[in-house]
Amino acid sequence: MSQYVFGVDIGGTTIKFGLFQVDGKLVEKFVIGTNTSDDGRHLLPDVAKAILKKLETHGLTLCDVKGIGVGVPSPVDDEGMALMGTNVNWKQPVPVKEALAELLKVSIYTTNDANLAALGELSLGAAKGKKSAILLTLGTGIGGGIVVDGKVINGFHGVGGEIGHLVAVAQGGAPCGCGKIGCLETVASATGIVRLAKEQFSSFKGKSLLGDLDNVRVKHVFDAAKAGDEFSLEIIDEVGHHLGLACANLAATMDPELFIIGGGVSHAGTILLDAIVKHYQIYAIPRIKNTPFELATLGNEAGIIGGAYLAVNGD
Amino acid sequence: MSQYVFGVDIGGTTIKFGLFQVDGKLVEKFVIGTNTSDDGRHLLPDVAKAILKKLETHGLTLCDVKGIGVGVPSPVDDEGMALMGTNVNWKQPVPVKEALAELLKVSIYTTNDANLAALGELSLGAAKGKKSAILLTLGTGIGGGIVVDGKVINGFHGVGGEIGHLVAVAQGGAPCGCGKIGCLETVASATGIVRLAKEQFSSFKGKSLLGDLDNVRVKHVFDAAKAGDEFSLEIIDEVGHHLGLACANLAATMDPELFIIGGGVSHAGTILLDAIVKHYQIYAIPRIKNTPFELATLGNEAGIIGGAYLAVNGD
Repeated sequence: MSQYVFGVDIGGTTIKFGLFQVDGKLVEKFVIGTNTSDDGRHLLPDVAKAILKKLETHGLTLCDVKGIGVGVPSPVDDEGMALMGTNVNWKQPVPVKEALAELLKVSIYTTNDANLAALGELSLGAAKGKKSAILLTLGTGIGGGIVVDGKVINGFHGVGGEIGHLVAVAQGGAPCGCGKIGCLETVASATGIVRLAKEQFSSFKGKSLLGDLDNVRVKHVFDAAKAGDEFSLEIIDEVGHHLGLACANLAATMDPELFIIGGGVSHAGTILLDAIVKHYQIYAIPRIKNTPFELATLGNEAGIIGGAYLAVNGD
Repeated sequence: MSQYVFGVDIGGTTIKFGLFQVDGKLVEKFVIGTNTSDDGRHLLPDVAKAILKKLETHGLTLCDVKGIGVGVPSPVDDEGMALMGTNVNWKQPVPVKEALAELLKVSIYTTNDANLAALGELSLGAAKGKKSAILLTLGTGIGGGIVVDGKVINGFHGVGGEIGHLVAVAQGGAPCGCGKIGCLETVASATGIVRLAKEQFSSFKGKSLLGDLDNVRVKHVFDAAKAGDEFSLEIIDEVGHHLGLACANLAATMDPELFIIGGGVSHAGTILLDAIVKHYQIYAIPRIKNTPFELATLGNEAGIIGGAYLAVNGD
């Protein structure tokens, strides 16, 4: 009887795996490096090999595996096709689901990596016991995962939950990697926050703890703000404005049970969360002004836990 | 055997009914006036009476009725409670589902009226055969209905799909009936378009076909634009900007199969649709730039058809 599932979180640098019992108990987690050479063609065979090897060390076979939930850094369509895997050097759409099913002969469930993390938080993290939640992952870019009734919103073209590409600055915004201008990612990701700081420092009249703007990182902005630096506090208020407004629009659209803020930038903690909530409450429909915001709790493990959830519950 | 369903669309002036066979064939549609006296307490008993009377004229009983799908002009929570039925003079939340189930002893399905119309368009209208669609109803206000995998997004507090209350003007916007400022409704509903025209006429340098601004209605603006009036064309471009940007944000969130534009304002036809699509394509994620926009096809009947769909398919 199939008593185990794998959660697999494919990233540009590493691929994280979790072997779980179907009741959600973690047996073992492990990591391999992401081989992006030759247009990333070794990546999926590497995933299959790592899974087979791990099963062997536990005296298990593929017959013991109910399914594998896989997150990839790309929009994924309904057929499990990764459409834009630029972070893993996929130049063409890659049929992740079909290829892994061919290699492993078990049920494969696929989604975007941010969606997978959202499912993880819903399963065991900040949204445990909830039916609907929206996760914003604030890192180098901004990822988003929207879960309604326990199911991820993948969208018709696999572009559901692309929260980083909501319009934040309608006119005169900075160019975004997606080809548009003024996306939320350009003003509220780690990169975006640093960009804002550099851009606005010239017009700031006053002294700032942020001495060396050339080498400033997002951590410096938050540290300076926590120490009371006026300029850094202004930047964080602006970031909170963009995120709070975006969340108010998401709430008028989806009305989730709660918002979860994750990713590296979220390590700034309550100073960022407070700025988001302040502006959210200005822009939210009055009836849903008190929708809670929480920090993600699962960190790097959210993806593999979400993968296990997907493999247990289907998509 | 239960071979019939009712679709019921409750509005502030009239209540529309449709008696359908479970295969979707319309048997008869009929209308009663909305009695909003005494805090609207006669409304649901009136609905029940009208249904019982109609069944009698067809020689049917409640045993022939599989279910009734009801739309109300209010957010509706998961228990079928109408939370803000101000248009029908409900001062308190009203348990629509429970009250009608008590009166009629059949399965009652409830949702917001705009959601009901979206289901109607998905069932038999502009989105027939699609799985996901977003409907914007541009009338006195702006209603929205979001359908994913054939199910309406009601939201945790019944506020899902409140597209009229997306933020369109973040700073310095006009007050909205919801208590916020700058909602999409304040710049792209019939009322909002007239407001924009009046507000911006003073700063327009030139002549306009819109002579009498005091009595201008939305139809005049569109008629003047179709006749080439520069000022009216500018207004419509601005409305298209607000709606196109909002739809681009909805697309980055939900990635629907298509957008449907309905309501009285949509009678302006392609001139409005073209302005929306022009701006949508500027703000949309490149991969979903070509998501189609269509005009609603069911008009006033969308609600009762959506009600029938809900009663046949459950919620």
